Amino acid sequence: MEGKLKTDRCRTQILFLWSFLAPAVALAQTQAPAHPLDALKTQEYWTVYEVLQGTGRIDKDTYTASVLLHEPAKDKVLAWKDGDPIQREADVILLRKGHVTEARIDIAGRKLESWQERKGVQAPILESEFKDLGELVKNDPRVVDALAKRGIKDLTTVECVPLPFGYFAIPELEGHRIMYGGCADHRGAYLTWGRSIEGLLVKVDAVEKKVLDVTDEGPVPVPTSPINFQEAASIPRPGTTPLAVTQPLGPGFQLAGGEVRWQNWRFRVRLDPRVGPVINLVRFDDGTNLRSILYEGSLSELFVPYMDPAAGWATRIFIDAGEFFQGGVLRPLREVADCPANATYFDGLVPDEHGIPVLRSREACLYEFSSGAPAWRHFEKEEISSRPSRTLVLRSAAVIGNYDYLLDWRFEQDGSIHVAVGATGIIETKGVTAKKANHDHAMSGASEVSEAAPDEFGHFVAENTVGVNHDHFLSFRLDLDVDGQNNSFIAHRLKQRQLPASTHRKSIWVAEPFRARTERDAMMDIHLERPAMWVFENPNVRGPLGYATGYEIMPGHAAASLLDPEDGAQRVGAFSSHQLWVTPYRADELYAAGVYPTASKGDDGLAAWTKANRPIENTDIVAWYTLGFHHMPRAEDWPVMPVMWHEFVIRPFNFFPQNPVLTLPNAP
Amino acid sequence: MEGKLKTDRCRTQILFLWSFLAPAVALAQTQAPAHPLDALKTQEYWTVYEVLQGTGRIDKDTYTASVLLHEPAKDKVLAWKDGDPIQREADVILLRKGHVTEARIDIAGRKLESWQERKGVQAPILESEFKDLGELVKNDPRVVDALAKRGIKDLTTVECVPLPFGYFAIPELEGHRIMYGGCADHRGAYLTWGRSIEGLLVKVDAVEKKVLDVTDEGPVPVPTSPINFQEAASIPRPGTTPLAVTQPLGPGFQLAGGEVRWQNWRFRVRLDPRVGPVINLVRFDDGTNLRSILYEGSLSELFVPYMDPAAGWATRIFIDAGEFFQGGVLRPLREVADCPANATYFDGLVPDEHGIPVLRSREACLYEFSSGAPAWRHFEKEEISSRPSRTLVLRSAAVIGNYDYLLDWRFEQDGSIHVAVGATGIIETKGVTAKKANHDHAMSGASEVSEAAPDEFGHFVAENTVGVNHDHFLSFRLDLDVDGQNNSFIAHRLKQRQLPASTHRKSIWVAEPFRARTERDAMMDIHLERPAMWVFENPNVRGPLGYATGYEIMPGHAAASLLDPEDGAQRVGAFSSHQLWVTPYRADELYAAGVYPTASKGDDGLAAWTKANRPIENTDIVAWYTLGFHHMPRAEDWPVMPVMWHEFVIRPFNFFPQNPVLTLPNAP
Repeated sequence: MEGKLKTDRCRTQILFLWSFLAPAVALAQTQAPAHPLDALKTQEYWTVYEVLQGTGRIDKDTYTASVLLHEPAKDKVLAWKDGDPIQREADVILLRKGHVTEARIDIAGRKLESWQERKGVQAPILESEFKDLGELVKNDPRVVDALAKRGIKDLTTVECVPLPFGYFAIPELEGHRIMYGGCADHRGAYLTWGRSIEGLLVKVDAVEKKVLDVTDEGPVPVPTSPINFQEAASIPRPGTTPLAVTQPLGPGFQLAGGEVRWQNWRFRVRLDPRVGPVINLVRFDDGTNLRSILYEGSLSELFVPYMDPAAGWATRIFIDAGEFFQGGVLRPLREVADCPANATYFDGLVPDEHGIPVLRSREACLYEFSSGAPAWRHFEKEEISSRPSRTLVLRSAAVIGNYDYLLDWRFEQDGSIHVAVGATGIIETKGVTAKKANHDHAMSGASEVSEAAPDEFGHFVAENTVGVNHDHFLSFRLDLDVDGQNNSFIAHRLKQRQLPASTHRKSIWVAEPFRARTERDAMMDIHLERPAMWVFENPNVRGPLGYATGYEIMPGHAAASLLDPEDGAQRVGAFSSHQLWVTPYRADELYAAGVYPTASKGDDGLAAWTKANRPIENTDIVAWYTLGFHHMPRAEDWPVMPVMWHEFVIRPFNFFPQNPVLTLPNAP
Repeated sequence: MEGKLKTDRCRTQILFLWSFLAPAVALAQTQAPAHPLDALKTQEYWTVYEVLQGTGRIDKDTYTASVLLHEPAKDKVLAWKDGDPIQREADVILLRKGHVTEARIDIAGRKLESWQERKGVQAPILESEFKDLGELVKNDPRVVDALAKRGIKDLTTVECVPLPFGYFAIPELEGHRIMYGGCADHRGAYLTWGRSIEGLLVKVDAVEKKVLDVTDEGPVPVPTSPINFQEAASIPRPGTTPLAVTQPLGPGFQLAGGEVRWQNWRFRVRLDPRVGPVINLVRFDDGTNLRSILYEGSLSELFVPYMDPAAGWATRIFIDAGEFFQGGVLRPLREVADCPANATYFDGLVPDEHGIPVLRSREACLYEFSSGAPAWRHFEKEEISSRPSRTLVLRSAAVIGNYDYLLDWRFEQDGSIHVAVGATGIIETKGVTAKKANHDHAMSGASEVSEAAPDEFGHFVAENTVGVNHDHFLSFRLDLDVDGQNNSFIAHRLKQRQLPASTHRKSIWVAEPFRARTERDAMMDIHLERPAMWVFENPNVRGPLGYATGYEIMPGHAAASLLDPEDGAQRVGAFSSHQLWVTPYRADELYAAGVYPTASKGDDGLAAWTKANRPIENTDIVAWYTLGFHHMPRAEDWPVMPVMWHEFVIRPFNFFPQNPVLTLPNAP
């Protein structure tokens, strides 16, 4: 577990209860790793930095776009025992004048292991590129002219940002680092959201630091509707009384060497700059054995395509983690608001664009809560049998520009894990000349919609401000190891069966278990008329009733991409084409849209790997769940969105011999 | 609000805070109704009883199958003001020797308003029928023989129950009251679940009290696997520390004349014997106006078909509310386990089979809780803006035989209502000769499944015990009145649109709003490739941005029935064919499978009414959401199921001019 332990609870109590952890907590920046899957420590970042400097190949034009833990081989991690030496390597992406080099560093050995130049790929955007290219765009005479035409002469309040756009749109990305920029004027506001300067699209060469092209489709006034959510009044709701959650004896989980132990659960967490929280070695103590469930689980990628063909909007097809993770995707949580008063916080480390470690406070929180609902119950013959439940929540917030994604891993006592995504933050809006909607939204069909309606591609959320339609697809990589590494994927397909007349019924459904032999068999699309239950089982381990032990992935409210499969954008975000994929485990297959999504031709990532249609039976397999939702903004989403939660569930299926919460205590 | 107020909190505090309510609370059994939509009060049940007795038409063979509030006309309720006289009527279903009579009683006038004999319908099963017919079955010589053949000679521990089976299966239901009985032997256990006596199906005439037919397909040993969940040990999980939720100043909601006031929400609740909690007059105080959202919301029906063609199993196609509500569907909640320590409980009243009121404690609870998640947040420029959230939960538990359904109405501060169903209790199991599964479940297709597998229609959950596959479909009736009675239903259909090459993209999706003109237009099926957003709007009220004000129904994980539409069972549970239906408001259209589902030919209920394809534009309309899930049991569901939650969300869509939780207080 990363960094310093923070909490809102009485410090003396904690010091008493956690005194055995004190050295690790106090020396977070300089401590050595305790486990092969620990996040990179401060001194390890410095070692990487120094080894790279020592190569003599780093100059003032060289930037560090990424420093990530290179995990040791899975078998080595699984065989590792406390006290064994810990192999530590880092994978670095260097960007120099548009050219990408991958370096691997042996940290303990303090040496460069490999140095590999890569052609045809684009590193994620650097913080300094946002700043420098933004300034470049803003000061280009054509832009200054265009702004003046819009009545904007004081450029102090204008902010411009460059954004990547894929290879499919800019074939010259091959060998060049090209982006598209747009501007906003935050005059009168703290941030630029809701203040976009429309009709102005600027193409820049990020290496040559040159504006290549300025497209001006004509001025649209910058909206001025109120957007100050930061200082929104704090107004107590009528009749509100205090509601306190307290854990006077401290949390009900323990942290030992970075492992979280809560009730029967055991797992590790590291906070990764690219994908946020990575959950490792998730096991369940069934009283006799510590049984493996999930070797590794994390967000893998986000695909957020916008749905407006206008200049400056068609370009918005963000691959949010892979394009924007430099500096880390996680941002601090706010005590008492983002997590409850009984939460414990964890700091994180991220490398800056020189690879130098930066401390980030409260990048995750861990807490127990009770929803007040039972774990199970039954009433009969005047007896109520019921046991109260509680939940352990690990929460982080990935912030990618305007959007904040709360990422929850909720461990339940019954052996299930609820993975939940809470979307909040600011929607992207387009300034329009019209003040508000002027047509009747209640119509019978498309033919009655005026093509020129200012809200054709979204909804007004404020005057002159249209929230633009878009999608969110989040791919979660779930390296399930149910009772061991070799698993199979079974789709239990529910099919109608006709019955003989003697039954007085015409039909039932029967479940037909279908074991996926290869990747193509396991590309799952949700159809209500052809339902399937998705079970990952270990064919080598049988429960007492004769079934292979298993875990099920249960989707929640889901969405599939509506883009043309031949659309270049869709080829990059192709993981959104299915709600579930299953691949054989490969150490280097981590990101659903590939390592370098920006200039991708669709030749890396889930859709590319699975073209080989590899076998996935009784072998180490990885599940990829696509959590997706279409977002058609509404007035309530402005100026900041109420959190919208979506989730899926990973739950035991014939993993336990019976209900694992049967013997829960009577007290919550 | 029904009955006595109970709470776990300090009584003196409550007495102080709620002293103005004391008369209502203390005199629950005898109080007069405070509002036209209050549940029937004790003295009202007695009045109904006395009026019926006074007709001279009640004899010892007459049973009262149902006494329900007959709601006053909607316009009268909406026009009603405190102090106005309250019209009170009750609808009674009488059952006498298989014949059904409907009576309406004017309670204030203490007189019979109507007396209507009904042909071709079947009343719900009476408690005494369960008992008497069970005894009848058990003592039939053929049954005694069949039991003896199974080695069962001591009948003390044998329990038999009659169960209804539809008209489609038993055409002689027309004019007769026929049921099918089965038996179980609870020797060594408290309850009969998991102890079924298979292969024995007994047809009985419930009026003649006669066993018509005994089918014995041969003995199967009664399973003996452990099923004692009632006395399951209470074992503290390692490291557990106390976690307390306290509200020292009492709850943050108020109860005034039966209305719940919580923050900006206002609503009424009554506990109905047939459908459980009925939420009425749900309104939101936006600071200026008390705005209508939902006139009435409740569960309407449950359809639970089992998927095994065996004798005694094909007959299990339960219409859980309509067939089994005599005596009320709700059962008590257990303090601290089913609801948290800060919950307030409400008692309920149900009529027994003579119409005599019975007090039921803790039929619902109401409490606030905080999940610890924010209502909204955004991080940018080193600032975290975030506001903590809390939720108000109204919970009940409908218990229908083996299953307990937790019914939650969760009111959120952001104007949304999450309706959640937690399925728990005991699954229905079939005794089989095989001890456990003996075939490999990992197969490539149906052809490899042995037809004779003992678990062909479910999964073993214990030795000799197969949990049988089944479905749950719950229809929720939602009489949305968004800013008034006249609403329209808009399906915003998301459709792919091809783009010109100049955009560098091939496609986007656009939302095409489609206003449903008639009921058929509004039968919504969920297809991921053809998504639609379901919005109920008031075309007569515009928000400041020009849009009609609206509320959206967002489905959760959903299921559609897989039965043949021509299946008689499916015709009765036809509401399961679509995930959403919209009908014009009719006071007498309350139950999705009709008033009398048992002998239904499919001529009452949603599918029947909507055949008229009535107009639903700009008129008073009702939404019917089908919450469905397929249940393929797993070992973890035995001997009592961990709660499995499913939910859907009713949320504002351009109802508020902006985010309604923007100004939440900084403290939770």
